[in-house]
Amino acid sequence: MKNVRIVLVEPSHPGNIGAAARAMKNMGLSALYLVQPERFPDKQATIRASGADDILASAVVTETLAEALVGCELVYGTSARSRSLPWQVVYPRACAEDIVQNAASAAIVFGREEAGLTNAELAQCQRHVTIPTNPAFSSLNLGAAVQVLAYELKLATLAAPCDQPPPDSEYASAEQVEGFFEHLQTTMVEIGFLDMRQPKLLMQRMRRLFHRARLEKTELNILRGLLSTVQRKLVD
Amino acid sequence: MKNVRIVLVEPSHPGNIGAAARAMKNMGLSALYLVQPERFPDKQATIRASGADDILASAVVTETLAEALVGCELVYGTSARSRSLPWQVVYPRACAEDIVQNAASAAIVFGREEAGLTNAELAQCQRHVTIPTNPAFSSLNLGAAVQVLAYELKLATLAAPCDQPPPDSEYASAEQVEGFFEHLQTTMVEIGFLDMRQPKLLMQRMRRLFHRARLEKTELNILRGLLSTVQRKLVD
Repeated sequence: MKNVRIVLVEPSHPGNIGAAARAMKNMGLSALYLVQPERFPDKQATIRASGADDILASAVVTETLAEALVGCELVYGTSARSRSLPWQVVYPRACAEDIVQNAASAAIVFGREEAGLTNAELAQCQRHVTIPTNPAFSSLNLGAAVQVLAYELKLATLAAPCDQPPPDSEYASAEQVEGFFEHLQTTMVEIGFLDMRQPKLLMQRMRRLFHRARLEKTELNILRGLLSTVQRKLVD
Repeated sequence: MKNVRIVLVEPSHPGNIGAAARAMKNMGLSALYLVQPERFPDKQATIRASGADDILASAVVTETLAEALVGCELVYGTSARSRSLPWQVVYPRACAEDIVQNAASAAIVFGREEAGLTNAELAQCQRHVTIPTNPAFSSLNLGAAVQVLAYELKLATLAAPCDQPPPDSEYASAEQVEGFFEHLQTTMVEIGFLDMRQPKLLMQRMRRLFHRARLEKTELNILRGLLSTVQRKLVD
């Protein structure tokens, strides 16, 4: 990750530089390059970096994109729209995997807040990456775009993410499940199993158990029927 | 995606509410719930929403987390740190796939900027999701965290997220590419660049280069035109 540069071309809002620095540090990246930033260093960048000051302090400011890319083996440019001359475009996941698996040094280049990268700049990038978005509202905040790519780079360095259990049937809603937990707690108190002056982790453990199980409506009804029966028996 | 809520619990900075709204709209989400926001509505939220005003306008403000979850079948809570009583925790990708594949209605709950969600709030969530981060600097900006989850939800709704977008133009066929390599070799021999008695790895390297680039028809024609021109010049 040390050898992956984040390159921002002519960022106009210093706050976005700070947000990018924070996103980078969150994900273990450190090499920030700024091509002709409008204002840098700037207080707003420091505020938004929120502790990622070292990234800002070591940021390299260059006059040209080419300078910022010196020594990079693999260069991805971010592109929001399709160009007159179509290029091979990948999604962030494939980009991150490509970089982590195939490159000793790499850069991801981000364009201006309003206008992105020029065709000439994109032509300096070997490959293009695009973040899938809502076509009706496709312009991501610069810091947010850096966050998505940095996140994918982080993931690409980790082992396979955990899978989920297979789908079940009709689930109880959040408030139904809360109702069940109340019923369970009341019943446990009534039967003297739970002492609210010394509750320990009992209800938390119950919650964890049933949340993990993800209750279906039918199951919840059965459980509540069971609790009601217990309560009735107690009265008898 | 209409049935997936983003729930922010006691956000203190209105700018983060705006950033969350923008991230949501970028990814096709629309249902924003705010549990006791410190300041809302607020100019700073509108500025950072950067056009996602409709998300802010339709945001639902509630007194309690439980109210914000009414009607939700599947609830994920975001958790940065491991708790005394470990819960099943998944990464954003598994969370998003779970929601898109298995739930008719769902919510992802985000905690306070500084302190996250309380144990009691996390206990109202069926499952916990964590964004993998640099352990030395793990606290994401709230808007950035929403961006990552929203991005994963968007990806999960796409057919095959790991696949590339369809090729932009027409690639040259295998035999056309072979024809090009022959032409290239002939030309290199003709100009004395390649000695077939001592070919070394020259053609292999050329092959590797152009195969990696995956030539398009137009590009191949241009290259062959170039080679033909070289050959013609040689005869002259």
